[in-house]
Amino acid sequence: MKQIQKLNCACLVALALIGVVATASAQDPLPSWNDGSAKQAIVHFVQTTTESGSADFVPPEGRIATFDQDGTLWVEKPMYAQVMFCLDRVPAVVAAKPELKNVEPFKTVLSGDREAIAKLLMKDLEKVLVATLTGMTTDQFQSEVKKWLATARDPRWHRSYTDLTYQPMQEVLKYLRANGYRTYIVTGGGQDFVRVYAEQTYGIAPEQVVGTIGGTSYGYDKYGKPILTKEPKLLLNDDNAGKPQGIHLMIGRRPYAAFGNSTGDRQMLEYTKAGGGARLAMLVLHDDATREYAYGPAQGLPDSKVGTFTQELYQEAQQKGWIVIHMKSDWKRIFSFEP
Amino acid sequence: MKQIQKLNCACLVALALIGVVATASAQDPLPSWNDGSAKQAIVHFVQTTTESGSADFVPPEGRIATFDQDGTLWVEKPMYAQVMFCLDRVPAVVAAKPELKNVEPFKTVLSGDREAIAKLLMKDLEKVLVATLTGMTTDQFQSEVKKWLATARDPRWHRSYTDLTYQPMQEVLKYLRANGYRTYIVTGGGQDFVRVYAEQTYGIAPEQVVGTIGGTSYGYDKYGKPILTKEPKLLLNDDNAGKPQGIHLMIGRRPYAAFGNSTGDRQMLEYTKAGGGARLAMLVLHDDATREYAYGPAQGLPDSKVGTFTQELYQEAQQKGWIVIHMKSDWKRIFSFEP
Repeated sequence: MKQIQKLNCACLVALALIGVVATASAQDPLPSWNDGSAKQAIVHFVQTTTESGSADFVPPEGRIATFDQDGTLWVEKPMYAQVMFCLDRVPAVVAAKPELKNVEPFKTVLSGDREAIAKLLMKDLEKVLVATLTGMTTDQFQSEVKKWLATARDPRWHRSYTDLTYQPMQEVLKYLRANGYRTYIVTGGGQDFVRVYAEQTYGIAPEQVVGTIGGTSYGYDKYGKPILTKEPKLLLNDDNAGKPQGIHLMIGRRPYAAFGNSTGDRQMLEYTKAGGGARLAMLVLHDDATREYAYGPAQGLPDSKVGTFTQELYQEAQQKGWIVIHMKSDWKRIFSFEP
Repeated sequence: MKQIQKLNCACLVALALIGVVATASAQDPLPSWNDGSAKQAIVHFVQTTTESGSADFVPPEGRIATFDQDGTLWVEKPMYAQVMFCLDRVPAVVAAKPELKNVEPFKTVLSGDREAIAKLLMKDLEKVLVATLTGMTTDQFQSEVKKWLATARDPRWHRSYTDLTYQPMQEVLKYLRANGYRTYIVTGGGQDFVRVYAEQTYGIAPEQVVGTIGGTSYGYDKYGKPILTKEPKLLLNDDNAGKPQGIHLMIGRRPYAAFGNSTGDRQMLEYTKAGGGARLAMLVLHDDATREYAYGPAQGLPDSKVGTFTQELYQEAQQKGWIVIHMKSDWKRIFSFEP
């Protein structure tokens, strides 16, 4: 009898524990976040905009959340993945057009001299971008990007670039979608580039990727099949003021939540917060040199050409209720591959 | 006992009848279509692309269907609704800028002389479009369109323009969505204009409206609130070759089904059919002067400046397996307000 009682007790304790675990996981959609004001702000925003009867309830059709990509959803250091793709493609471009071999900036890129490449000016880089991102069909471009992603590895973790997404942000994407939000990427990167992997990497469909947009031309291949060719014509530079413009162009509604990490995201956050009701604006601050990178120059962090987060932006965030996510203290883990 | 038996019989017959009716409506998602090859083609396409195990099965994420608007989803005669909106707005524009009063084409539009207005050239009309579609904020524009739609009536049925959608096409939209398709409008009309009413009128969200796209600029109103202003800068003319370009820009995937009604839809249908597997391309031919309008000039129908359907397009459709919907014989009823 005592034995049975003991067993029953053990069972009850076990059941209770299972209950606790189940409840805890149901209650915590953001397990990679440390408890703190950033995590609380996200949970509060979702609850207040989706619980029926809430004063700030947002009907499902209006639930739009926008995310910058580089530095917000995945690593952008030492250089944007798309720029790495463009540099890696230079040999193939020069093989097809040998006259470029001794022309700058192609000559420097071909030299493989990392220091010299890092010193290339924006106008040099633009020549590389035009040569490697245009002049082919949209189908050819897509297959080039796929091929590159399959083999390219980043210089620090030696992993596929698509492994370097932030686990806490992946949780935010899923949490928002589970609550009826449509999640969009709004990136300064090329729309066609990001669309190749966004669905598999973030669960974000091509039509929900807003990026820098180049023109295409419609024509026919030698078999008479219609093709779209990527042209060196910029329709939208989806950075800074281009982000609200891109949101209007591609979505046609103001987001309720927006996430960024640099001065290029300022206007997107401003535009988002200018709507009525509860709106969430967040900025990731990279202050963790050990687990990822540390750069600002806000808060005395080292300056950066890539993903600049100025002290002015930090102050504006404080003034306007944009919430700064401190990577070091807010994120329990950064990558899904961490033990 | 006999009485009870009779009652039971009556009940069974009634139940059987209810069953028949329920089955019939479950089996016919397109009740406003007459049985014929057009209706069969739609049903066959949906079945073959959505039934698991089908050789032409399309996974849900790929299910995209695109619809031209003017003349395909709603009436475009005697003139596109958006052009009527622009003409109606001229007095307000001239009131704000009195110097336009004696300048053509504004003078002619203000005269109210319908014949003279109908004779305006495209370059005149463009001046009216620029003056009435740009120079205001996106929010102001949206509220102007809403206000206009609430009171404007078409010259033939004296109904709101949004009443003049084709009931058979509304059924196709619903049928496709019920089978996991995402339905997009791909129109030569202004993207911002169509977005104002597309959700209520067709169940199509703003982000699923692809249209002619103008640039915007980002700035601040006198209270410091961020605003987007519509600029006279054309980013995409979403007609002819612009339709596949717009589809690539806004959706990033090739549609499996495309619906149009004029030469402006040629490339969209061609691009759609160039994909692999089962693809559906359809063209509405307006051959019903009694219930709607008759115009071509295909098949000896009267010529038309609006929604031109040439004999070449008709022949190309025959050759390439694009299915022509003959309004007169394929549609049992045209408008939902018909008795």
